[in-house]
Amino acid sequence: MTELRSKQKRIRIGPFSFKEFTKVVTRFHGFPAPGVILGGIMVNAALKKMPSGILFNALSETAKCLPDAVQLLTPCTAGNGWLQIRNLGRFALALYDKKTGKGIRVSLAPSRIEDFPELKNWYYKLIPKEEADTERLLASIREGGSSLCRIQEIHIQPEILLKVKRGKRIICPQCQEAYPDGGRGSCPACLGESPYE
Amino acid sequence: MTELRSKQKRIRIGPFSFKEFTKVVTRFHGFPAPGVILGGIMVNAALKKMPSGILFNALSETAKCLPDAVQLLTPCTAGNGWLQIRNLGRFALALYDKKTGKGIRVSLAPSRIEDFPELKNWYYKLIPKEEADTERLLASIREGGSSLCRIQEIHIQPEILLKVKRGKRIICPQCQEAYPDGGRGSCPACLGESPYE
Repeated sequence: MTELRSKQKRIRIGPFSFKEFTKVVTRFHGFPAPGVILGGIMVNAALKKMPSGILFNALSETAKCLPDAVQLLTPCTAGNGWLQIRNLGRFALALYDKKTGKGIRVSLAPSRIEDFPELKNWYYKLIPKEEADTERLLASIREGGSSLCRIQEIHIQPEILLKVKRGKRIICPQCQEAYPDGGRGSCPACLGESPYE
Repeated sequence: MTELRSKQKRIRIGPFSFKEFTKVVTRFHGFPAPGVILGGIMVNAALKKMPSGILFNALSETAKCLPDAVQLLTPCTAGNGWLQIRNLGRFALALYDKKTGKGIRVSLAPSRIEDFPELKNWYYKLIPKEEADTERLLASIREGGSSLCRIQEIHIQPEILLKVKRGKRIICPQCQEAYPDGGRGSCPACLGESPYE
């Protein structure tokens, strides 16, 4: 009973309880992915360290799971340009002031990962996904909560802050669709980057 | 009165009325962006052409607005890997069968763009954003509805269908964080791709 209670630790993830956030994740992401739920705890930790009232952008260092935690808990989405996804393979994210580039990066604290065997197996991919005990993994994430987070102050590279002004939109002579003029005569898709056969 | 009524055409965008979808977009995207609302009509048109009961992925040919329409109306999100965003600069998207790669691409019908001056100004960026009449643009999008869509059958490139098996996760000797082993000795961020100063 004591053990059960300690596992059912009360934590908040943004405006949600742990259980509520699990439902929100399931609705958006399709299933209660441990990466999105842990990501929610990380985003929450970053939000708490950000000065209030500033406009911020987000950067995810992986395309897996974390972008959805950012989209569910901040105003930053893939489509509004305030969330940037970089495929660096690290399970970490940053929120930063749109103007100054000053912000907070959150990753997992290596020492804490050691305290939770299921989390360790998941983070380092020590066992195949199918063999993972998802329920225990989620219980570890809930139990660890914000103590799992390693928090760093960062400055984003200045060139990331620059708003790229795309050229005028012109019509591609091959596909007849509008695209930002890059001076190459046709749109990128018609110049070999088409994702279609 | 007649003109007003014709502008208030009843259309459905997924499970939503036009007005409901505008609210859903505002909540997620931050404001009722014409690109996301038009994107919703395009996603809806694609969904209607897809065979029922199949598992599908999505591909957006632009990072602007369209990814959010996909995320709001399909199970595909940036973080679950079912939505791929390619920066080809074309305002178009595709939904395709995860297994066969067969699917539907939706772009804007050039002939219909000519029928709506506000839409034309927006699509070809003929006037600065600040000078655009957003209300009239949204009325045009509503009035045009699915007739604005150009629908094509496509086959996605086979290599896009392949699931990339990332290597084992190892610890980067520089930042001490886990990343998928690419045989380069350190993680991409420590090898010069860091977004931070």
